Amino acid sequence: MREDKKTIIVFSGDLDKAMAAFIIANGAAAMGNEVTMFFTFWGLNILRKAKGAKVKKTFLEKLFGWMMPRGPEKLGLSKMNFCGLGPRMMKLMMRQKNVNTLPELIEQARALGVKIIACSMSMDIMGIHPEELIDGIEYAGVASYLGEADEANVNLFIA
Amino acid sequence: MREDKKTIIVFSGDLDKAMAAFIIANGAAAMGNEVTMFFTFWGLNILRKAKGAKVKKTFLEKLFGWMMPRGPEKLGLSKMNFCGLGPRMMKLMMRQKNVNTLPELIEQARALGVKIIACSMSMDIMGIHPEELIDGIEYAGVASYLGEADEANVNLFIA
Amino acid sequence: MREDKKTIIVFSGDLDKAMAAFIIANGAAAMGNEVTMFFTFWGLNILRKAKGAKVKKTFLEKLFGWMMPRGPEKLGLSKMNFCGLGPRMMKLMMRQKNVNTLPELIEQARALGVKIIACSMSMDIMGIHPEELIDGIEYAGVASYLGEADEANVNLFIA
Repeated sequence: MREDKKTIIVFSGDLDKAMAAFIIANGAAAMGNEVTMFFTFWGLNILRKAKGAKVKKTFLEKLFGWMMPRGPEKLGLSKMNFCGLGPRMMKLMMRQKNVNTLPELIEQARALGVKIIACSMSMDIMGIHPEELIDGIEYAGVASYLGEADEANVNLFIA
Repeated sequence: MREDKKTIIVFSGDLDKAMAAFIIANGAAAMGNEVTMFFTFWGLNILRKAKGAKVKKTFLEKLFGWMMPRGPEKLGLSKMNFCGLGPRMMKLMMRQKNVNTLPELIEQARALGVKIIACSMSMDIMGIHPEELIDGIEYAGVASYLGEADEANVNLFIA
Repeated sequence: MREDKKTIIVFSGDLDKAMAAFIIANGAAAMGNEVTMFFTFWGLNILRKAKGAKVKKTFLEKLFGWMMPRGPEKLGLSKMNFCGLGPRMMKLMMRQKNVNTLPELIEQARALGVKIIACSMSMDIMGIHPEELIDGIEYAGVASYLGEADEANVNLFIA
């Protein structure tokens, strides 16, 4: 076990939870930690590109993909979403306080060398193709996560 | 602390989160880890038998028990549930991809020797009796969880 | 790393999840652990005083503050809330079983020396002022959390 390694599973695709995940990840990376984030299930939506890619999908995959938010700008809040009004209010309050937005936090994470991994099994279940996710990320499964978690001293699951 | 021991608290009773819990647990067990899963609050619903048992309950306990899903086949999704349509869609997509269903994942966990513990305190609060849960599991409280977590190197809380 | 130190991030402001957080924290503290709880985002609502304090707020901050529950007596359930009927039912069942209420669990945590920290960044985002939170707590950011988590052997995120 290393004292300077952290992993975070990002299961949720809510704006507020995604922000918490990146704030912890970036803080740890800034303090010299090696940080790995695993995006699984709804968390994959955080990594989606705003524009759909040309990929072959079944009817169900298309429907699922159409109903789920495409990328950090489209995410809802886990509470007080009010059909999108809540996220707008929170973003407005964040701007007034000069707090980084989620896209900025993601950019920062990349600059800090945070490893971003998309869970290949949940991509398969939900019909999400690599072309639809942001570039420069890795793809792996649960064995890979466990290997990293075994080395880390802090492992969080953001449900 | 042992490098080959993991614990997972399953607080949620949502299909998607239950699947994530068992995928991690089974992966770890398959890699030679000793894995303990603690089911508490809504997570107890994952362990419920499909058919109710004959047990004495207060009116409130009956009402609570009647409103909560009985077992893995009846669970909803944490997002996009749409009154049960979401879980059906997800199960259909899982079948098309040959991904294991939740009942299969639970079976697999038992075959791999994953220890399944139901939280006795939340059973008491929610009026769930041992006769209503699947057989061959253990019952314990928070002290027991902490004892196991102290020995493990990865401890997750699936909320 | 110390074998007798635990941290819990309380991101959720739901009654059921708050109870789970304090039951684990108090159990660990009673067994001789040093326990630190970090309250962030909706979790801050658990620490709010029932009565509002006289503080200057922007219109958005006032609106947000007015929509969020003030303190442990006002929290909803993460499932089966039914506009407040669910929490009432659960509290009634807890009283019948002589289980400690959330305000009692919080009192107990303080008596056991559990360290309660409010996340200053999310207070800023949500416009929550120190005067609005219960007395005798600390205020800190992610760096402080990471410092504590590095020393602990169990670190949970309650989303």
